[in-house]
Amino acid sequence: MTATIPEGVESARDLVGPAIAAAVDQLSPEVRIVAAYHLGLADPAGRPTGRSGAGGKALRPALALLSARAAGAAPEHGVPAAAAVEFVHNFSLLHDDIMDGDTERRHRPTAWTVYGVGAAILAGDAMLALAQDLLLEGSAPQNIWASRCLSAAVQRLIAGQGADLAFERRDDVTLDECRQMAGDKTAALMACACSIGAIYVGAPADLAMGLAGFGAHVGLAFQLTDDLLGIWGAPEITGKPVRSDLRTRKKSLPVVAALTSGTEPARELGALLAQTEPLGEDELIRAAGLVEAAGGREWAEAEAEAALASADKCLAETDMPDNARAEFAAIAQFITTRQW
Amino acid sequence: MTATIPEGVESARDLVGPAIAAAVDQLSPEVRIVAAYHLGLADPAGRPTGRSGAGGKALRPALALLSARAAGAAPEHGVPAAAAVEFVHNFSLLHDDIMDGDTERRHRPTAWTVYGVGAAILAGDAMLALAQDLLLEGSAPQNIWASRCLSAAVQRLIAGQGADLAFERRDDVTLDECRQMAGDKTAALMACACSIGAIYVGAPADLAMGLAGFGAHVGLAFQLTDDLLGIWGAPEITGKPVRSDLRTRKKSLPVVAALTSGTEPARELGALLAQTEPLGEDELIRAAGLVEAAGGREWAEAEAEAALASADKCLAETDMPDNARAEFAAIAQFITTRQW
Repeated sequence: MTATIPEGVESARDLVGPAIAAAVDQLSPEVRIVAAYHLGLADPAGRPTGRSGAGGKALRPALALLSARAAGAAPEHGVPAAAAVEFVHNFSLLHDDIMDGDTERRHRPTAWTVYGVGAAILAGDAMLALAQDLLLEGSAPQNIWASRCLSAAVQRLIAGQGADLAFERRDDVTLDECRQMAGDKTAALMACACSIGAIYVGAPADLAMGLAGFGAHVGLAFQLTDDLLGIWGAPEITGKPVRSDLRTRKKSLPVVAALTSGTEPARELGALLAQTEPLGEDELIRAAGLVEAAGGREWAEAEAEAALASADKCLAETDMPDNARAEFAAIAQFITTRQW
Repeated sequence: MTATIPEGVESARDLVGPAIAAAVDQLSPEVRIVAAYHLGLADPAGRPTGRSGAGGKALRPALALLSARAAGAAPEHGVPAAAAVEFVHNFSLLHDDIMDGDTERRHRPTAWTVYGVGAAILAGDAMLALAQDLLLEGSAPQNIWASRCLSAAVQRLIAGQGADLAFERRDDVTLDECRQMAGDKTAALMACACSIGAIYVGAPADLAMGLAGFGAHVGLAFQLTDDLLGIWGAPEITGKPVRSDLRTRKKSLPVVAALTSGTEPARELGALLAQTEPLGEDELIRAAGLVEAAGGREWAEAEAEAALASADKCLAETDMPDNARAEFAAIAQFITTRQW
């Protein structure tokens, strides 16, 4: 099954891209060059690439605009909220790439490898501060609600990344802990993306909560899909090295599901990942096979399906225009069937 | 001349400390331990030290509370603003220590040396997000004004640190560029500290602007004093290694004033700092002597005096209760006569 990007995602890029580029232009020269490179707006030397400011999959800004539409507003009215969510997402990518030592993202060298750790930390900091400021350009109460919604998501994002780092040093991570981590690290910002547009245009609380619930389930499905791609994804499509998550011994959901399955392959996998030397190609292939044999792959695929079903249920129970509901459903579907 | 901490600074610590501790308590366990350690609330293992949450000199929270008093409000009403400024200050310390490779702060190992770079980045991120959120607990327009005032200071802080990092790789930094960098890196947050309390309690714009002007001058005086202490300060009092700024070849204001003086000692200093090997103790002593011989020390002392005089002028021209004015003046005086 081949997944195509829903139309709404491309049009979101067109609407939000200029807002992102304009905000980046406000940064000081040393910080701007790093931010523009990371976002795909410029090459390492700062020359414009001609691409839009919402690099990557741009799912979050699309969800935020759709969220404004779900509240009956024109998508343009959700642009600051969409740009803010995208800046927070990119702030976390910039900082996570440093912490995780990742050298490639979106088929390009990561910012810290090009400009140094210090410059990449600063560019992330600047994006976080920009995100909050974009939401406060108006002075209505909903500007504050949107900002606090984003702050809460940022704190969960940080909590999730903190747990992820701590897991690296532990060999007794439970599936519940791992699910909580994914909820914090990925689902919280997705829930925010799905509700912040509505909040920003002054929607009632029950709509915002219904959309946040949808986003939380979609976020979990997204992370499960990401974890599956991190092991079985095609590197030429994902833009990440093959079996990258096994190489770094990441305690991803399918890996932890396999490790805690109490099976013979689980014991073998545990012993393999406990080795202190780097894993060779043959060992990586064996590790992927063991995750599958221990049921980790099947479990993650079933969990992603279940999360998607829960997301659909939230959507059905939340009052919004039919065309907005259909687009949310299309993005959710894309998220679990994508190859990248 | 021995400088004593003005009384207002100690009482600010008592008022703001609990707000800071309460905010830190909201963080996730992995992030909280780093934040609590950095702020002096806990030892490396997370055991409470019994100290207040406003570690270091706690000048910024004191200025923020005073700023609320200048607007006729009780200092308690400025506590969220004071805590927010202190969190931003500590966010920048956490991240700057990583970028600058500093291993000691406030007589203790820096957070990144204790918990790792990743954990220290996250703790800084969490503090930045907390700061913004603290200001938005109310829903009055001044909550937004205060938040935007802080965001603007954060962006200048980041711009200043970005310039500072870039200066390390250049040998042609002008005194104007260096002054701009100090204005961004230090004076902007000090200007914010001096005005945000008033803004947060809804003061008129002319009071906020007068206080911000005072703070900007005080901030420059603070940075000049810091730069002088970074060369001639006593390490047992400053908590930093002796001649630390020369050791790291920092382009501080007195160093750049010396380097750009067009004198013979300037040429010698330039040659010494251009060496690729680490500087030995004798060379560091010689470098300090050359900064002085080239007029860098005298220039910085005179600039600090001039900045202080400009600050006093701002204070005299801004309408506020006399006791608030007197306390602002006392803090400004302390800042330039302190030994740490």
